[in-house]
Amino acid sequence: MDTHTSTRPSARYTEVRQRSLELAAPLSAEDCCVQSMPDASPIKWHLAHTTWFFETFVLETWEENFRPFHEAFRVLFNSYYNAVGDRHPRPERGLLTRPGLDQVRAYRAAVDDRLQAVLAKRGAEPRLLELVELGLNHEQQHQELMLTDVKHMLSRNPLWPPYRAAAATQAAVDVPALDWYEFSAGIHEIGHAGPGFCFDNELPRHKVYLQDFRLASRLVTNAEYLAFIDAGGYQDPRLWLSDGWDWRVAQGRSHPLYWRRGEDGWQEFTLSGAQALDPSRPVVHVSLYEADAFARWADARLPTEAEWEHAACVCRIEPGAAEAHLADNGAFHPRAVRDAGLTQLFGDAWQWTQSSYDPYPGFTPGAGAVGEYNGKFMVNQYVLRGGSCATPGHHTRASYRNFFPAGACWQFSAIRLAHRR
Amino acid sequence: MDTHTSTRPSARYTEVRQRSLELAAPLSAEDCCVQSMPDASPIKWHLAHTTWFFETFVLETWEENFRPFHEAFRVLFNSYYNAVGDRHPRPERGLLTRPGLDQVRAYRAAVDDRLQAVLAKRGAEPRLLELVELGLNHEQQHQELMLTDVKHMLSRNPLWPPYRAAAATQAAVDVPALDWYEFSAGIHEIGHAGPGFCFDNELPRHKVYLQDFRLASRLVTNAEYLAFIDAGGYQDPRLWLSDGWDWRVAQGRSHPLYWRRGEDGWQEFTLSGAQALDPSRPVVHVSLYEADAFARWADARLPTEAEWEHAACVCRIEPGAAEAHLADNGAFHPRAVRDAGLTQLFGDAWQWTQSSYDPYPGFTPGAGAVGEYNGKFMVNQYVLRGGSCATPGHHTRASYRNFFPAGACWQFSAIRLAHRR
Amino acid sequence: MDTHTSTRPSARYTEVRQRSLELAAPLSAEDCCVQSMPDASPIKWHLAHTTWFFETFVLETWEENFRPFHEAFRVLFNSYYNAVGDRHPRPERGLLTRPGLDQVRAYRAAVDDRLQAVLAKRGAEPRLLELVELGLNHEQQHQELMLTDVKHMLSRNPLWPPYRAAAATQAAVDVPALDWYEFSAGIHEIGHAGPGFCFDNELPRHKVYLQDFRLASRLVTNAEYLAFIDAGGYQDPRLWLSDGWDWRVAQGRSHPLYWRRGEDGWQEFTLSGAQALDPSRPVVHVSLYEADAFARWADARLPTEAEWEHAACVCRIEPGAAEAHLADNGAFHPRAVRDAGLTQLFGDAWQWTQSSYDPYPGFTPGAGAVGEYNGKFMVNQYVLRGGSCATPGHHTRASYRNFFPAGACWQFSAIRLAHRR
Amino acid sequence: MDTHTSTRPSARYTEVRQRSLELAAPLSAEDCCVQSMPDASPIKWHLAHTTWFFETFVLETWEENFRPFHEAFRVLFNSYYNAVGDRHPRPERGLLTRPGLDQVRAYRAAVDDRLQAVLAKRGAEPRLLELVELGLNHEQQHQELMLTDVKHMLSRNPLWPPYRAAAATQAAVDVPALDWYEFSAGIHEIGHAGPGFCFDNELPRHKVYLQDFRLASRLVTNAEYLAFIDAGGYQDPRLWLSDGWDWRVAQGRSHPLYWRRGEDGWQEFTLSGAQALDPSRPVVHVSLYEADAFARWADARLPTEAEWEHAACVCRIEPGAAEAHLADNGAFHPRAVRDAGLTQLFGDAWQWTQSSYDPYPGFTPGAGAVGEYNGKFMVNQYVLRGGSCATPGHHTRASYRNFFPAGACWQFSAIRLAHRR
Repeated sequence: MDTHTSTRPSARYTEVRQRSLELAAPLSAEDCCVQSMPDASPIKWHLAHTTWFFETFVLETWEENFRPFHEAFRVLFNSYYNAVGDRHPRPERGLLTRPGLDQVRAYRAAVDDRLQAVLAKRGAEPRLLELVELGLNHEQQHQELMLTDVKHMLSRNPLWPPYRAAAATQAAVDVPALDWYEFSAGIHEIGHAGPGFCFDNELPRHKVYLQDFRLASRLVTNAEYLAFIDAGGYQDPRLWLSDGWDWRVAQGRSHPLYWRRGEDGWQEFTLSGAQALDPSRPVVHVSLYEADAFARWADARLPTEAEWEHAACVCRIEPGAAEAHLADNGAFHPRAVRDAGLTQLFGDAWQWTQSSYDPYPGFTPGAGAVGEYNGKFMVNQYVLRGGSCATPGHHTRASYRNFFPAGACWQFSAIRLAHRR
Repeated sequence: MDTHTSTRPSARYTEVRQRSLELAAPLSAEDCCVQSMPDASPIKWHLAHTTWFFETFVLETWEENFRPFHEAFRVLFNSYYNAVGDRHPRPERGLLTRPGLDQVRAYRAAVDDRLQAVLAKRGAEPRLLELVELGLNHEQQHQELMLTDVKHMLSRNPLWPPYRAAAATQAAVDVPALDWYEFSAGIHEIGHAGPGFCFDNELPRHKVYLQDFRLASRLVTNAEYLAFIDAGGYQDPRLWLSDGWDWRVAQGRSHPLYWRRGEDGWQEFTLSGAQALDPSRPVVHVSLYEADAFARWADARLPTEAEWEHAACVCRIEPGAAEAHLADNGAFHPRAVRDAGLTQLFGDAWQWTQSSYDPYPGFTPGAGAVGEYNGKFMVNQYVLRGGSCATPGHHTRASYRNFFPAGACWQFSAIRLAHRR
Repeated sequence: MDTHTSTRPSARYTEVRQRSLELAAPLSAEDCCVQSMPDASPIKWHLAHTTWFFETFVLETWEENFRPFHEAFRVLFNSYYNAVGDRHPRPERGLLTRPGLDQVRAYRAAVDDRLQAVLAKRGAEPRLLELVELGLNHEQQHQELMLTDVKHMLSRNPLWPPYRAAAATQAAVDVPALDWYEFSAGIHEIGHAGPGFCFDNELPRHKVYLQDFRLASRLVTNAEYLAFIDAGGYQDPRLWLSDGWDWRVAQGRSHPLYWRRGEDGWQEFTLSGAQALDPSRPVVHVSLYEADAFARWADARLPTEAEWEHAACVCRIEPGAAEAHLADNGAFHPRAVRDAGLTQLFGDAWQWTQSSYDPYPGFTPGAGAVGEYNGKFMVNQYVLRGGSCATPGHHTRASYRNFFPAGACWQFSAIRLAHRR
Repeated sequence: MDTHTSTRPSARYTEVRQRSLELAAPLSAEDCCVQSMPDASPIKWHLAHTTWFFETFVLETWEENFRPFHEAFRVLFNSYYNAVGDRHPRPERGLLTRPGLDQVRAYRAAVDDRLQAVLAKRGAEPRLLELVELGLNHEQQHQELMLTDVKHMLSRNPLWPPYRAAAATQAAVDVPALDWYEFSAGIHEIGHAGPGFCFDNELPRHKVYLQDFRLASRLVTNAEYLAFIDAGGYQDPRLWLSDGWDWRVAQGRSHPLYWRRGEDGWQEFTLSGAQALDPSRPVVHVSLYEADAFARWADARLPTEAEWEHAACVCRIEPGAAEAHLADNGAFHPRAVRDAGLTQLFGDAWQWTQSSYDPYPGFTPGAGAVGEYNGKFMVNQYVLRGGSCATPGHHTRASYRNFFPAGACWQFSAIRLAHRR
């Protein structure tokens, strides 16, 4: 059983809920209100929506004499659950200056009190505990989005203001040469196993046949990606998927999203503001299109999600203390590798796979409205595996399936190469 | 000489600048940050841009050892003055959560102190006084925009929250029947005359030839506009300009911008929140297209700007105490007419004319960068005359030329009919 | 009475209708079918729509036992007459491969026969004659559009194919220096006078007051426009209207529409294909924005439409034999001026004025559905005066008001400067 | 070895090339010129581009003293081969009235003569034969697109004109009840095997692990799809993928692309014009979104491409005489099933799978510029299997991978259900 589910539910609830407020703490009410693009949401909306989730899927069922905190919030903070009723249009989330941040905090406090009361009274009911656990994992996903969404918003400000002051900067290190780990063909199993929590999209565990393959020992570094740029990688359509080339031209892209070339060389926008580009760290905030073009240029390819998961399981690599520490110590930027070994699977950056986000054989969405959680997004999205410096500790695992459209790059998304053996 | 220019410049400066802060007072930092559409700007941006104007066009020239308050503000808060340098893209003004509202207030305070010092030292120099006066009139224009922009922003919130609590609501009154005032053909003069301040677009005063015409005694009321709606006015393309019909279809418009039909009849969004539609008040927030279609349906037409100005001058109607009071008492909504006479020229709502916004014969833009103030907008815009409940007291006059594109309706824009004699 | 209306109606009908077919003669069925942008229409559509006009507004009223040639054509070939019924969407006119060009020719022939029969029988009825005359003038307008629309379509083909082979090319000439004609302030009359045909928008004739002004003796030449380009005119936003600058940036425009810079210097696309740019000819295919920016750079301005018309009338310049010859001899490109005098008013290119297209005082649209001809376009359009090398002979006059949006440049539109005296 | 490759290359070349002209024969030059949407191409462009393929990839290499037929055609008729040089923008293919259809026919004839000469001289060289075979298969793909593109173009004409007169209409039949075929879990092989031609994307043949599954015996009929519509399928977002629902709303879709509801019930646009909807025939021209929503409503799912191919191979179903006959007899509309069995795999309509179009393990694009044929489209596309009534005879096979974006519905795309066992 996972560490986190061994905690008492009410204590775990408090801890997770508290972390959302801590993530918002460095931000002003203004910072929390604005939406920088339709794909991103305001921090305030994240704080409210995660609360709406508990109110709607837990309190409404388990609380006696349930009455909503505010009738309008049921529409304003519904993300996409059609079975629940109307929703406020996603691109207009940033127009909601009312309720203000204080009111949303009050909403959180009230729902938290009521939920703890429900837990105290009916905390032995398995379905209740399941939904609370789902709500907490849901909130952890939004905690990562809070960081990536606010990073995007701040990046659109010409001042490149920091989310919070830099921790002591890690010096550039000598990164070990890229090594290849070999795996043999055969029938393997992927998907979640064991008693701990997982999302419905990680099930059922099932057999797949994999060919022989090799997986890179670490993520592609900024230095390696710069070599691709310097070799004209952004100017050669033959390296790109057709859609990827169209994306590159339409976006006018010639480097990763948060890079800019200053008088003193390349800079990168981080949650601590502008930093000189560190050649030893992994390149992040690349789209699948960029990852794929880099891989083709490097005479390699991206792994499939099954290959990635199989490698992690075979090598018995799990998100451990170090990764949890990274995520929770607030560096919020991936580190450079210092040591040999199959590294950076968890805790630095999500890794694009070439796998489209499809249902596993026999996939069944969760029952009721929460069944809209995952399955309905299974088209035109690609799977990322691992976990990032913005992923909450104890949230990810080898079977975890993150997914985004091929052009998304505001997540901490990186490149791990694969190869035929 | 106008009242307002008889005031000492430093006192007048303080008074006008203070009013901007008062207008922002009912709003949270969140309310002040958000931009609801590219045409509108955040309140915070208005507060900063009007300050930028004084810093750039006054301090930079007249202050010794001038240094900008913040180098980046020179770009962030430049609206459209190409001669001054780069500008931040207009549709992204709402992304600037930094500087925060507090910093913008500090910016205002610092520039105010420095400007008063300059006035104290060099307040006898005419060009300095001219530019300060221009800056104050510029700020007053933005004061009106602060109200109309925040109204638009709040209207996009499904809660229709008020800007501030309603003053005592005026009861519906019996509006006098519409009467026609007749004016005779001949050569008349329009354009600003006299020593007071005016904008460059009101000059030079010049002769025009007008035909006989008749002007309506008051604005079109909500009741009259409802009759147009009920008669199918929004469904009959023959009543509309071709562009107007395309606009109507593209917008899906079947009533004025801030109306909605509730279970208890029509409601109107006001700066005090939702109100039952008062049939006696003027219809406001209509586009030129709607005004023109209404006029055609009513077998009338809109006046030209020369007709409007001539009528106001002949009848010696000026924005007086009552209007100033309205604007400054904070009702921020047009009143119903109680009395006969040529009424509602000033202080309730701007009135669309059929005149495109063109240069007067012999028009010369102001010298230097401030010459970009007016002239460069003289295409695809239409003139509105009068002044509204959101116009600061002592700001408007008979020769004042307001202008917006034909589809704009977030201003307090209304309909006054005209006719051949 | 005008020359053209002295002709017998049936002969004039034949002559005008025949000319449309002659204009289409150099084109293949493919050339006649394609639509290169929503603003332009296929040649086949022009041929059919002008026929629809006679069928709908003449035959349907005056022919006994009227039955439409083809029921579907009533929708397919209605341009914008809402009073008549449904219309086919304008941007999809190019999708109509059926009816084919042959069928449209058959449609024309059938309507022509029936209309001649009606004329033979009831040709003394004034309203019938009026509508036929309106239909012929309508067709002449479309004859000009056939040339400008096909020019645009061919220009989008990388091969720049000619509409028809070049006539002998006029050699570049020494253009006389630009001279200024002076006109005095006072009350003048504009608008159509006399018994000949005019459109409703040229009426009523009415008084205007004009200030002193000066009008340039000829159009701006390619050489003069090149000087503007070489001086950086397309890179300096201070020369442009704000909308104009946005237009320039959005279009990526750095020279007139049909110019391109080849290895041997500038080339211009003409209806005879690519030609070396002739410095002595008028610059054509410029938008109002370009015309206005050029004028500002040249320290001048564009004339108002009243100034233009007054100048033409005072100087007694009318579209004469020379101009008619130009239009009808098929050069279809403006000539260079050889002689002194107030020249190029008619027959070379339309001339942008600074006047928005507004109703004249007392304007009344024509009765019935034909009342949708002009009035409903009176917003966001600007008046051009004169006539071009593509205007049919005997079609234009001093009071003629052509109009297009400020960004339009696929017409033969040129620049004549004006000035305060 | 396949039938078709046993034919002598020169005879086969003639036969395939001739068929393209036959497909264009019922069309006018106008029909062949117009482009109805960016996804579709004009017939004339198809005729020219397939010729360009032989000219560029065969003649340029194997012909002595090669000179292109027309220098400009190298750009105009390059579809997407970046390695070859510039291309004409895809959405502007419909603007090319020149070269005319006759010139394109002459281009075909000239290239055909030269290619036959090359074949006569060097027809023993394997790489030459390979490229000719690739070019013929490429041309056959475009033959299907000619039919689907012209169908789309004609459908946009309000007259719904036929491509050619209807063959005798098949009467509605009693369709056998839907039956399920069961397949057992295990390691299976998919991908092309054997000596015949295949595209690079069908290789390498490789092992996959499949779970137990069941496959429907026939395609979903119009009657079954009508039941989905009548049950409110287009109004219930819970049945749709999230992207699918957005697509449905944006398109305003409430039935398949080529249906319309008339006074006498549903009609369907076919290549023979409007037909009463035949309930017994397969529903066609549905998007993946519609197919997926239908499947969810029917408590089933779409097959994966591996399941589909495995089923076809296990059951030894190949595109046979009947299918070839269908495609070549020109019905160009799918038939109803009359008999039991696993039917309609080939020859009626392509069948959406839930599989995204990904490279097979070890996929290597073809060498040189022809390597841009398939691989670069492997993102955001979904695989269709089988073949349609518009697929040329002998062109498809069980391993054939057709692919389109999820929203595409102008192909003959249909629904075959699958299920867990």
